[in-house]
Amino acid sequence: MKTFDLSTYLKKQQDLINSALDKWLPRPHGPSGPVVEAMRYSLMSGGKRIRPILLMAGAKAAGGDQKALLPAACALECIHTYSLIHDDLPAMDNDDLRRGRPTCHKVYGEAVAILAGDGLLTYAFELICNPELTQNISPPLLGEAIFLLARAVGVSGMVGGQTADILMEGRPVDAETLSFIHSHKTGALIQTSVEIGGLLGKANNEELYHLKRYGESLGLAFQIKDDLLDVEGDQEILGKPVGSDDRNLKATYPALFGLKETRKRARELLKQALSELELFDDSAEPLRSIARYIVERDR
Amino acid sequence: MKTFDLSTYLKKQQDLINSALDKWLPRPHGPSGPVVEAMRYSLMSGGKRIRPILLMAGAKAAGGDQKALLPAACALECIHTYSLIHDDLPAMDNDDLRRGRPTCHKVYGEAVAILAGDGLLTYAFELICNPELTQNISPPLLGEAIFLLARAVGVSGMVGGQTADILMEGRPVDAETLSFIHSHKTGALIQTSVEIGGLLGKANNEELYHLKRYGESLGLAFQIKDDLLDVEGDQEILGKPVGSDDRNLKATYPALFGLKETRKRARELLKQALSELELFDDSAEPLRSIARYIVERDR
Repeated sequence: MKTFDLSTYLKKQQDLINSALDKWLPRPHGPSGPVVEAMRYSLMSGGKRIRPILLMAGAKAAGGDQKALLPAACALECIHTYSLIHDDLPAMDNDDLRRGRPTCHKVYGEAVAILAGDGLLTYAFELICNPELTQNISPPLLGEAIFLLARAVGVSGMVGGQTADILMEGRPVDAETLSFIHSHKTGALIQTSVEIGGLLGKANNEELYHLKRYGESLGLAFQIKDDLLDVEGDQEILGKPVGSDDRNLKATYPALFGLKETRKRARELLKQALSELELFDDSAEPLRSIARYIVERDR
Repeated sequence: MKTFDLSTYLKKQQDLINSALDKWLPRPHGPSGPVVEAMRYSLMSGGKRIRPILLMAGAKAAGGDQKALLPAACALECIHTYSLIHDDLPAMDNDDLRRGRPTCHKVYGEAVAILAGDGLLTYAFELICNPELTQNISPPLLGEAIFLLARAVGVSGMVGGQTADILMEGRPVDAETLSFIHSHKTGALIQTSVEIGGLLGKANNEELYHLKRYGESLGLAFQIKDDLLDVEGDQEILGKPVGSDDRNLKATYPALFGLKETRKRARELLKQALSELELFDDSAEPLRSIARYIVERDR
């Protein structure tokens, strides 16, 4: 594993996930065709597939079979994409561009975009327990994974974080509220991606504990880095207007603590995440590299 | 069972479901409090709880333990309420009133209403596999139930039907498209409510087959009756403007086939639904009475 090459690894995993998503997503036909088109438009628009990759890397660290977990991994990407579609809506962040392309509601209209988000959220649960695809996973473990997933993306997690974010727009945000928004809106799903990977990969309790803690640090680092990129970034690289969060007066880490302190915090979180992986051997190399990549990326 | 009294039965079941929903739904607190308030506002606004009641009646017909299925039953109501919140949004049906009260987005704003719908949809999946509540249900059966539920409410079911309904607004609709809308938008979840009840209530294959077919006829009858009530109804009774579907030029059964033919079809479907229950004894009396009630109700 000394020669572990992250970009080769990421490319291979992304290809695996993209093929699976394309194969398993319904195809547009009949009177409801447009909503499936909209789901596919947003889902297949070149995301980094970080969450599904984290799930599979978590399973690998625990020594589990990664390919059997592909449906669960794809479910995470369906949920992530649904959250982007709904966040971009006029009533929410009102964004016209996402990954350099017109947002879902710009192409398909608001009604179909809302329904495409609903459809992707629901499809995630259909995929993660599709009996044809998940017959090799023990039903009690699968039930636990579905429960963790639902909790991470509902009001106790992502939906709660997005609510707080929207409601605080244009108002002064203290450190506690910012931490709530970060840990719920982005952190919960990232943490749970690693946790579900460990769980379905049959990690023991100690391993699972540290995978969860790794995911927690990583989730926060990810959001802080996103905030940093928004300040430092270049519009061409990011595919969305630089400073768009600032323009909407959104709560961000750099706005509250300054750039220097924010960069320091990101480095600390990376160190923390890596320290949680000390009990694992080379099989956790993907998780280690992903953590470094997330904090050091420029897009 | 000769003296089976439907209104006593419905009241008892509604009370059971309402208490459970109130107990199990999160309570508003912290920065995301308003979305939980909005979820509770729409969920606790006096719905008839038909879907959870059907689930428990399906389990009873199969001789299963109904109380153990209360989390699954409540999940159906969360999903039904989410669909109402999203259907009422300005980008969809743009309704100001629901059950005689201002719609969710009128009270909490569009962003929080979208998130409340997302939160309820997700909470349904959290509830149906909450390990503390569902420990008496066999995990493989529970996995199958979650799969059926997700398929019934996603693009192959409710979301697909709502998409077709929205896209056909103001355009001429043929019988085939209308049947697609009815069977997907409302029918799929009603059918699946009965089916999940039978499944978790440990119905055998023959019983399950007939419960499904009962649910199919009932789901269509329910939607046809809703269409009829919209034409015949009285605004005060229904709590929404009479003819609102007509005003938006929505596809309805009476608009396509006329009132007489529509009433005849509703009666035929009731007969069909009852005939599917012939193999069951008195334990299916609730299902029989509910079918009659759905076709004969005046609100």
